[in-house]
Amino acid sequence: MRRIVVLAGGVGGARFLRGLRQAVPEAEITVIGNTGDDIHLFGLKVCPDLDTVMYTLGGGIHEEQGWGRAGESFSVKEELAAYGVGPDWFGLGDRDIATHIVRTQMIGAGYPLSAVTEALCRRWQPGVRLLPMTDDRVETHVVIDDGEGGRKAVHFQEYWVRLRASVPAHAVVPVGADRATPAPGVLEAIGEADVVLFPPSNPVVSIGTVLAVPGIREAIADAGVPVVGLSPIVGGAPVHGMADRMLAAIGVGTTAAAVAGHYGSGLLDGWLVDTVDESAVKTVETDGIRCRAVPLMMTDLEATATMAREALALAGEVRSL
Amino acid sequence: MRRIVVLAGGVGGARFLRGLRQAVPEAEITVIGNTGDDIHLFGLKVCPDLDTVMYTLGGGIHEEQGWGRAGESFSVKEELAAYGVGPDWFGLGDRDIATHIVRTQMIGAGYPLSAVTEALCRRWQPGVRLLPMTDDRVETHVVIDDGEGGRKAVHFQEYWVRLRASVPAHAVVPVGADRATPAPGVLEAIGEADVVLFPPSNPVVSIGTVLAVPGIREAIADAGVPVVGLSPIVGGAPVHGMADRMLAAIGVGTTAAAVAGHYGSGLLDGWLVDTVDESAVKTVETDGIRCRAVPLMMTDLEATATMAREALALAGEVRSL
Repeated sequence: MRRIVVLAGGVGGARFLRGLRQAVPEAEITVIGNTGDDIHLFGLKVCPDLDTVMYTLGGGIHEEQGWGRAGESFSVKEELAAYGVGPDWFGLGDRDIATHIVRTQMIGAGYPLSAVTEALCRRWQPGVRLLPMTDDRVETHVVIDDGEGGRKAVHFQEYWVRLRASVPAHAVVPVGADRATPAPGVLEAIGEADVVLFPPSNPVVSIGTVLAVPGIREAIADAGVPVVGLSPIVGGAPVHGMADRMLAAIGVGTTAAAVAGHYGSGLLDGWLVDTVDESAVKTVETDGIRCRAVPLMMTDLEATATMAREALALAGEVRSL
Repeated sequence: MRRIVVLAGGVGGARFLRGLRQAVPEAEITVIGNTGDDIHLFGLKVCPDLDTVMYTLGGGIHEEQGWGRAGESFSVKEELAAYGVGPDWFGLGDRDIATHIVRTQMIGAGYPLSAVTEALCRRWQPGVRLLPMTDDRVETHVVIDDGEGGRKAVHFQEYWVRLRASVPAHAVVPVGADRATPAPGVLEAIGEADVVLFPPSNPVVSIGTVLAVPGIREAIADAGVPVVGLSPIVGGAPVHGMADRMLAAIGVGTTAAAVAGHYGSGLLDGWLVDTVDESAVKTVETDGIRCRAVPLMMTDLEATATMAREALALAGEVRSL
């Protein structure tokens, strides 16, 4: 399994990738990153998920936080607040801003996001090939109550960061996804992959958004290679983030088995659940998806590498069926 | 002399304005700022002269340096260098960058520079009305040897900051000035002024550029009010900066008298030279410009306020002629 394709969102995906790289250093790993979380702030194009993968694998991440830069300062943010220019709820650090300045300038000069991402990665050397899911604009919106008896859609970052997912989400809409095309290299990487992995990322706003780009889900389903995922839900709750809120919005329960069922046997061949969810194995297998219960807490690099090895082992089992 | 119009460049102009505000706190001061030094860096619109005035009068300036922000940090600049993205010779600080982000975003949203400058000044409260000379793009270029026997034009900032004016300048060209129109309020302020002052700013690339915008020189000459300047040349050398280089480029000597003669009696009614240049008084008056020798070193706020009072006193004399 030399060629591995991984669909990735933010923190969970990035940490899993670090373990995967450790587990199979000789593999060619292509990461298809979610760009539905991208947002324009202060005229700058911010790609939180791509940057989290890039900084995490490139050694620049704020380890405890899981996102943003290590050794970060916030002078620009303070000054913007002094000008009364918002929004003030997004934690744009000074070091991070340089990335957005370079990106915005390249986009303005006509480079597609995929070329920009490649250029940024020349500095960070993440050890994987990082592709945005699409070069087209896709923006994940979340439908919430407007407080006046109606509903309104807000940008995902507004829901996630400003509101901290504290209000019910009625729907999640990847605006523009239906007209988007996969970025150069995405379908080729899937077509040449030996295995496709879904890390323990948010199944709705991370992996779900990548799958919403026409052609990607189909390419994965038709690739004829094992597709194995790791549950982001452990013991009925998300390990990281607020995936429960997003699952509720699309009518999927917050259980390891429900998420597997949501992906479905048409897409997923294998599924890893945590040992505390051992009882889910039977349910998932009844759905036609090979399932194993293994420790799924990414407590350190070695534990994460072990998870990656388990995922690849399960892929091997699936292929030999 | 309630209404005062001042043409301003960078450091010298800004420091003089602080003294003027101290000297006549009740006056309505309108500053017409040079924008020929403006430059786009990393996709951001940077207006060094407007910002120097704004920061100096608003209490945010780096006092020793004369430009840039106090308590500045350079994380963004370090990161841009790490990406290998240049230019690296312009000292863009983190706090300063926030100003450029706000400006660039407003320009992108369709606001003219004059409206943007007004918005930025709402934070800084400089105590003067700061107007850019024009909302149109003007860019001062300096013609230098290209090292291959020919000549080339470089942006003023490249000449000033990167090359530190270390090579001969053959010409100074305010590109776009001939097609520029004065910003809203500029001609009105001149028309309503009781006096017009030229601070000890660079007569070529600061005040000269402002005067190059069609309509401004004529409005000042026709205003029928005293026009008084202060020599930026003391004892045959510029007090601050590298005005000698710029004067040489336009064939004007580096003396207090030569600069007065360059402005000419058609524009200038009064001229202050430093006491060390007392001998220049007669030459200047022969040119038809009333001249006084007074201390012109802006060593502290009180010394600068005294210079401003001397300029206004000379304006009073001129008017009573």
